[in-house]
Amino acid sequence: MEETFVPFEGIKNDLKARLKCYKQDWTGGFSAGLRILAPTTYIFFASAIPVISFGEQLERDTDGVLTAVQTLASTALCGIIHSIIGGQPLLILGVAEPTVLMYTFMFKFAKDKPELGAKLFLAWSGWVCVWTAILLFFLAILGACSIINRFTRVAGELFGMLIAMLFMQQAIKGLVDEFRAPQRENLKQTEFLPPWRFANGMFALVLSFGLLLTGLKSRKARSWRYGSGMIRGLIADYGVPLMVLIWTGVSYIPSHSVPHGIPRRLFSPNPWSPGAYDNWTVIKDMLEVPILYIIGAFIPATMIAVLYYFDHSVASQLAQQKEFNLRKPPSFHYDLLLLGFLTLLCGLLGIPPSNGVIPQSPMHTKSLATLKHQLLRSRLVATARRSMGKNASLGQLYGNMQESYQQMQTPLIYQDASARGLKDLKDSTIQLASSMGNIDAPVDETVFDIEKEIDDLLPVEVKEQRLSNLLQSTMVGCCVAAMPLLKMIPTSVLWGYFAFMAIESLPGNQFWERILLLFTAPSRRYKVLEEYHATFVETVPFKTIATFTIFQTAYLLTCFGITWVPLAGVLFPLLIMLLVPVRQYLLPKFFKGAHLQDLDAAEYEEAPALPFNLACGGETGPFAESGEIMDEIVTRSRGEIRRVCSPKVTSSTSTPLKDSKSFQSPRHMDKAFSPRVSELRGEQSPQLGGRGPLSPRTGEARPSQLGKGTPDSTSK
Amino acid sequence: MEETFVPFEGIKNDLKARLKCYKQDWTGGFSAGLRILAPTTYIFFASAIPVISFGEQLERDTDGVLTAVQTLASTALCGIIHSIIGGQPLLILGVAEPTVLMYTFMFKFAKDKPELGAKLFLAWSGWVCVWTAILLFFLAILGACSIINRFTRVAGELFGMLIAMLFMQQAIKGLVDEFRAPQRENLKQTEFLPPWRFANGMFALVLSFGLLLTGLKSRKARSWRYGSGMIRGLIADYGVPLMVLIWTGVSYIPSHSVPHGIPRRLFSPNPWSPGAYDNWTVIKDMLEVPILYIIGAFIPATMIAVLYYFDHSVASQLAQQKEFNLRKPPSFHYDLLLLGFLTLLCGLLGIPPSNGVIPQSPMHTKSLATLKHQLLRSRLVATARRSMGKNASLGQLYGNMQESYQQMQTPLIYQDASARGLKDLKDSTIQLASSMGNIDAPVDETVFDIEKEIDDLLPVEVKEQRLSNLLQSTMVGCCVAAMPLLKMIPTSVLWGYFAFMAIESLPGNQFWERILLLFTAPSRRYKVLEEYHATFVETVPFKTIATFTIFQTAYLLTCFGITWVPLAGVLFPLLIMLLVPVRQYLLPKFFKGAHLQDLDAAEYEEAPALPFNLACGGETGPFAESGEIMDEIVTRSRGEIRRVCSPKVTSSTSTPLKDSKSFQSPRHMDKAFSPRVSELRGEQSPQLGGRGPLSPRTGEARPSQLGKGTPDSTSK
Repeated sequence: MEETFVPFEGIKNDLKARLKCYKQDWTGGFSAGLRILAPTTYIFFASAIPVISFGEQLERDTDGVLTAVQTLASTALCGIIHSIIGGQPLLILGVAEPTVLMYTFMFKFAKDKPELGAKLFLAWSGWVCVWTAILLFFLAILGACSIINRFTRVAGELFGMLIAMLFMQQAIKGLVDEFRAPQRENLKQTEFLPPWRFANGMFALVLSFGLLLTGLKSRKARSWRYGSGMIRGLIADYGVPLMVLIWTGVSYIPSHSVPHGIPRRLFSPNPWSPGAYDNWTVIKDMLEVPILYIIGAFIPATMIAVLYYFDHSVASQLAQQKEFNLRKPPSFHYDLLLLGFLTLLCGLLGIPPSNGVIPQSPMHTKSLATLKHQLLRSRLVATARRSMGKNASLGQLYGNMQESYQQMQTPLIYQDASARGLKDLKDSTIQLASSMGNIDAPVDETVFDIEKEIDDLLPVEVKEQRLSNLLQSTMVGCCVAAMPLLKMIPTSVLWGYFAFMAIESLPGNQFWERILLLFTAPSRRYKVLEEYHATFVETVPFKTIATFTIFQTAYLLTCFGITWVPLAGVLFPLLIMLLVPVRQYLLPKFFKGAHLQDLDAAEYEEAPALPFNLACGGETGPFAESGEIMDEIVTRSRGEIRRVCSPKVTSSTSTPLKDSKSFQSPRHMDKAFSPRVSELRGEQSPQLGGRGPLSPRTGEARPSQLGKGTPDSTSK
Repeated sequence: MEETFVPFEGIKNDLKARLKCYKQDWTGGFSAGLRILAPTTYIFFASAIPVISFGEQLERDTDGVLTAVQTLASTALCGIIHSIIGGQPLLILGVAEPTVLMYTFMFKFAKDKPELGAKLFLAWSGWVCVWTAILLFFLAILGACSIINRFTRVAGELFGMLIAMLFMQQAIKGLVDEFRAPQRENLKQTEFLPPWRFANGMFALVLSFGLLLTGLKSRKARSWRYGSGMIRGLIADYGVPLMVLIWTGVSYIPSHSVPHGIPRRLFSPNPWSPGAYDNWTVIKDMLEVPILYIIGAFIPATMIAVLYYFDHSVASQLAQQKEFNLRKPPSFHYDLLLLGFLTLLCGLLGIPPSNGVIPQSPMHTKSLATLKHQLLRSRLVATARRSMGKNASLGQLYGNMQESYQQMQTPLIYQDASARGLKDLKDSTIQLASSMGNIDAPVDETVFDIEKEIDDLLPVEVKEQRLSNLLQSTMVGCCVAAMPLLKMIPTSVLWGYFAFMAIESLPGNQFWERILLLFTAPSRRYKVLEEYHATFVETVPFKTIATFTIFQTAYLLTCFGITWVPLAGVLFPLLIMLLVPVRQYLLPKFFKGAHLQDLDAAEYEEAPALPFNLACGGETGPFAESGEIMDEIVTRSRGEIRRVCSPKVTSSTSTPLKDSKSFQSPRHMDKAFSPRVSELRGEQSPQLGGRGPLSPRTGEARPSQLGKGTPDSTSK
C-alpha cells in the first residue's frame, strides 16, 4: 500500500482496484460449493460466541438497556453490509471489547446526569457515534491508513498477544465468578446458596476445561492416526462447534439432581419480549439531548475514533499477512470510510457499533487457506491420476498438473504476484526424476506417491471471496432469532471457548515463539532447528533474540497493565502506536540493522548487505544438478523469500518478494519449501515463523522435512 | 527355566543359582548411590496407594475388622522378607485385589455362622492361610512353576490388560461413588446432603483428572524442550509423587468455604487407637475354631492357592521379560515356597497375605533399567570426553568406552549372556568412521556428539539388586506410622492414580498396540512403520493380525465379564490358564505357524523356515563395508534378535538369543538398534513392541531414527 495523504486519493485507488475483483469475489465463493461451509461455521462460532458474551457483559453493566440482542444485531448488520460493499472481504466485523468498555463508561456517566439518565443514554450514544463517524470520514479521506505500513511485525504481534491475554483474562475472570453469586440476582435463590455456588464453580471448571482440551485436540484431527480420512477431516473442521454442543449436552446430565440454575447459562431476553424494541427508535430521542451534551459527546467520540481506526486497520493488516500470499489488493482507506458509515448507522439504530476484530480476521484467512488447499489438492490429484493412468512421463505429469493449477488460479491481473506457483512441486519432480534416472519414463506410482508429495509442495494460497463472510454474518443474525436455543449454553462453556481462542492464536506468532525459545534449554535448541523455524533462529545471536524479546515482553506487560486503569485504559492502542516511532528510531540504536531485519522486517527498511553469504551456490545440493534451478529461491516458512547470493535490493517495493541476505547451513539446503498449508492446517510444530500473530493453532510437532532424522537426545 | 517335576529339584537349582548372585545383589544396590531413590519412590507410590485403597475397601467390607493398617503391614512385612531372602528381587509383593475379594467373601460367610461370627473371623482366616501355605509348599516342591514357561506373550499380555481394565474399573467406580453418600455413614451430616454430594463429586472429577493428566505429562518430562536437564530429570522421576502432593494441596484451597468432609479423604484408624491391635493376637483364637470349620477352610484355601500360584509366577515372569536383558537367573520355584511361608506367617498374624503384584513388578524392572542407563551413560560420556581430550582416534575411543562398560557390568558368570554389549555403539562408530574416511584420525566432537549417540546406542540393561525392593517395603511400613498424614489424601486423587497406572501400563503391550493398529486408517499405516514397531507389523498380513487380535479381545472381555460373577469371579485366572492349551493346540489350527511365531513367540515352538528371506546380506547397507559386521544381528525393539540369513534353529534353548526368520524391507536396514532405554524412558512412540505387557508408559512419539524423515500426509 503506497503512502499517500492526498485527500480522496487512497479511497479512489482502493475502489478502483477492488472493483476489478468484485465479480470474481462472488464467483470464486460459489465455485467452492458446499466446502465453503467449513470456514463459515468455524468463523461463525468464533464471531458469535464472544459477541454473545459481550452482550451479557453489557446487559449487566447497562442495567439491561443493551443486551446480546443488540450486539448480535450490530455484528450481523455490519458484517452483511461489509461483505457486500466493503473493500477487503477477509476482514471480519464484530462488537469488540473496547466498544463494550466505552459503552459501559458512557452509561455510568449518563446515568448520574439528571438531564440524561438511563432513558436518554442511547440517544446520547447516538450523538457520540455521529461524531465518531465524522472523525472516521476525515481520517479515511486524508489517507491516515497509510501509516499502517509503519506497523511492523513487532507492533502487530504485540497487539495480537495482548488480545490473547485479554481473552484469557476474561476466561479466568468468568470462571472465578462462577464460584460467586452474581450481583444483581436474588441471593436467596437455591442456586446461590453456598453449597450450590461451590458445586456450580466446580461444574464450571469441569465443563470449561473439558471444552478447552477437547477443542484443542480436535483441531489436530487431520494428523491423527486413527479413523478414516473423512471422519478426521470432519472433526478437524467442525470439531469445535461440535464440542460446544457436546459439552452443552453434558451440562444437562445431572439436571435431575441439581436446581434449575446449575450450571449457569446464558441470560438474554428474547428479542420479541417487551422492552427489547426500545433501541430501534432512538432517532426520535436524539433531538431531546441537551446541546451541551451533544457537543460534549465529541470527547468520547475522539477516543472511539482512534480505537476504531487502529483496531480496524490492524485487523485488516493481520488478515493480509505476507505468508498468505494474497493476490487481491488491500483496501484500507475505503474500509475505514465504510466503517464511518456503519458507525453512524449503528448509532442511529441504538446498537453498539462493530469494527474489524482480532483474532477472528486472521482466523478467517487461515481457514480459507485450508479450503483452497483442499480444492487444489483434489483437483491436482485427480489430474495426476489421470495422467498416470495414461502412462505419462514425469515431465508430462508435471505439465498437466501445472495446467490444472493455472485453471484454478484467481487471475493474476490484480497484482504482480510471484510465479512461484507449483515451483516447489516442479523442483521435487525434477529431483525425483534425477533419482529415478529418467524424466521421460512413465511415472511409477509406488515411488511417486502423489498424495503425500502434493500436501507438502502446494504453496499457501487463500480462497479470497465474499461468500463466507456474508454467510457467517447472516448466521450471526439468525442467532437473534435462535435466542431460546442459545440460552441453553452454559457460561462456563463460553469461558472455555475464550481460553481456546486465546491459545489457538499463539502458534505462528513469532513473539510467542521467541518467548518459548527463551525457555528452551541450550541443549535442546537443536530441536528447534530441526523443525520449521523462522530465519532469526539461525542468523541472530541468542543474546540478541533474548534482549529483543524481553523488551517486547516488558512493553506488552505495560500495555496489559494499562488496560486495568479505569476509563483511560481503553486508550491502550495509543501505547501500541507509540511502538512505531520506537521501532523506527529507538530500536536501531540498540540492535544491529541486520538483526532487526530478521527479527522484525519492516518494508521501509533497506535490506542490508549480506554478511553471511556462504559459498554462493556451492551448497545447493541436488539442485546444483539442474542448471535452471541454480538461482533457486529458497523460502523459509516465514514467507520471506530469499535468494542465494542476491545483492542489496531497495525497499518500498510493494511486491511480496522480499530479497534479503542469504544464509545456508549445510543441513538445511536439501529441499526448497514454502509455507505449506499442511503446516497451517495442523501437522506442524508451533515454530512456524511469520504466519501472522494470531493464526489459530492447528499444529502439532512434525519432524523435519529436510530428509534427515536426527535422534533425540536425552537430558544432559 | 527348565521344566522339571522332580521334587525339590527346581527349588535346589534356584537356590544354587541365586546364591551366587547374592553378594552382588547388595553391592550393586549400594554402588548406585542416591540414584536408587528414584525407582524406590516411584515403586513405593505405586505399591502403597493401591494397598491403602484396598485397605479402605476391606475396612468397609469387613466392618472394620481389617483396615489399611493391616494391608500396609502385610505389604511391608512380606516385601522386606522377600527382598532379603527371596529369589527374584525384582518381584514386588503386595496385597492384591483378589485377596481383598476373597477376604470379603470369607467375612460374609463367617459373619452369619453362629459358631464363628465376626469375632472368630480372623482365626478362621488363619486356618485358611495354613491350608493355603501347605498347598503352595506342595506346588513349589513338585515344580509346578515349570509350566509357567508355557505362558506365552498372549496369556501374559491378556492378563496384564485385564489388570489394567480392573484398575480402570475401580477408578471409575470410585469416582461415581463420590457423587453418592457412603453407606455406613450418618446421612444427616452436612457433607452428605445433596448439594454437597454433588459438589464433592465435581471436585473429585477435577482432582482426579488433574492428577491423571499432569501425571501422564510429567512422565515424559525428559523429552521436553523447556527447562534444564536436571529439572526435567527430576520431574520425570519424581513427578507423579509430586503431583499427588500438589493435588492434595489443591484440595485444601477451598477449605474455608466447604464443610469438613469435602473432598472425601482416606479414612483409616490410627494404628495406636484401641481396637487396632486385635489382629496381632489371633493365634490364641485359632484353636477356638470348631474342627468342622478348620477342615472346611480347605475349600477357600484351594482357590487362594491357585490364585497365588498364578499371580505370583506371572508377575515374576512379567518382571523378567526378554527385552530387559536380565543377566541373573529366575527363581520361580523357590519364590513360591517362600510365598507359602509368608502366607502362613500373615495368617498367624491375622493380616491378609501378600503376593507378587502386577503392574508394579514390571514397573520396578523398567525403572531400574532407566537407572542403569543413567549410570552407564555418565560413566561412558566421562570416558569419552577424557579420550577425546587426549585426541584419541575413533578406534581408541571405542576401546576405552568398551573397557569402562565392561567394568560396570554385572559379571557374566550367571548366564550365557549375549556379547552384544556395546555392539551397536561399535557399529555406529565404524559407520561414522567410514563416513569420516579415517578410523585413526582424532575424533571431531562436532561430528561425533557423544551424548546424543550414546543415548540411542546403549542397549537395555537393568540394575538388578535388592536394595530398592527393601527400601520401598520399609517405606510402606513407615506408612503405618504416617497414617495421620496419609489421611489427608483425597480419595479422588487415589482414583486418578489408579487410572494413571492403568494407562501407563498400556504402551509396550503388544496386544494393546495391535488393537490400536486395527483402528489405524490404512492410509496412515505407514506411520506405524516409521516408528519402532514389532516384527509382525511387517511380516504378518493385516487380516491375520486383525483376526488374532479380535480373538484375543473376545477372550479378554470374557475374562472381564467373569470377574463380575460373585464369588466364582475370583477364579478368572483359571480361564487364563486355559489359554495355554488353547495356544498350544487350538490356535495353530487357525493360524500359520510363521504368523503365530511373530505374533506370539513361544519358547517351545520351533522356529519355522525362512520364507521372507530377501537378498541375503545385500541390503545391509553401510554394514556391508565392514566384513566383520556381515553377520550383523539386527534387533527389533521387541528384543527378539534375528539374524540375517540364518537357518532354522532348534527350540528349547534357554538363551535369550532367539533366532528366527529374517525380513528386511529396504528402508529399515539403515541402522541396527536394540531397544534403547531412551525408548523406555520416554522419547519413543507407544509402538515399542515387546517391552512387556505392563511396562509403564514413558514415551511420546518420536520420528523414525532411521535417518529418513517422511513428510506427514494429510487425510485421505
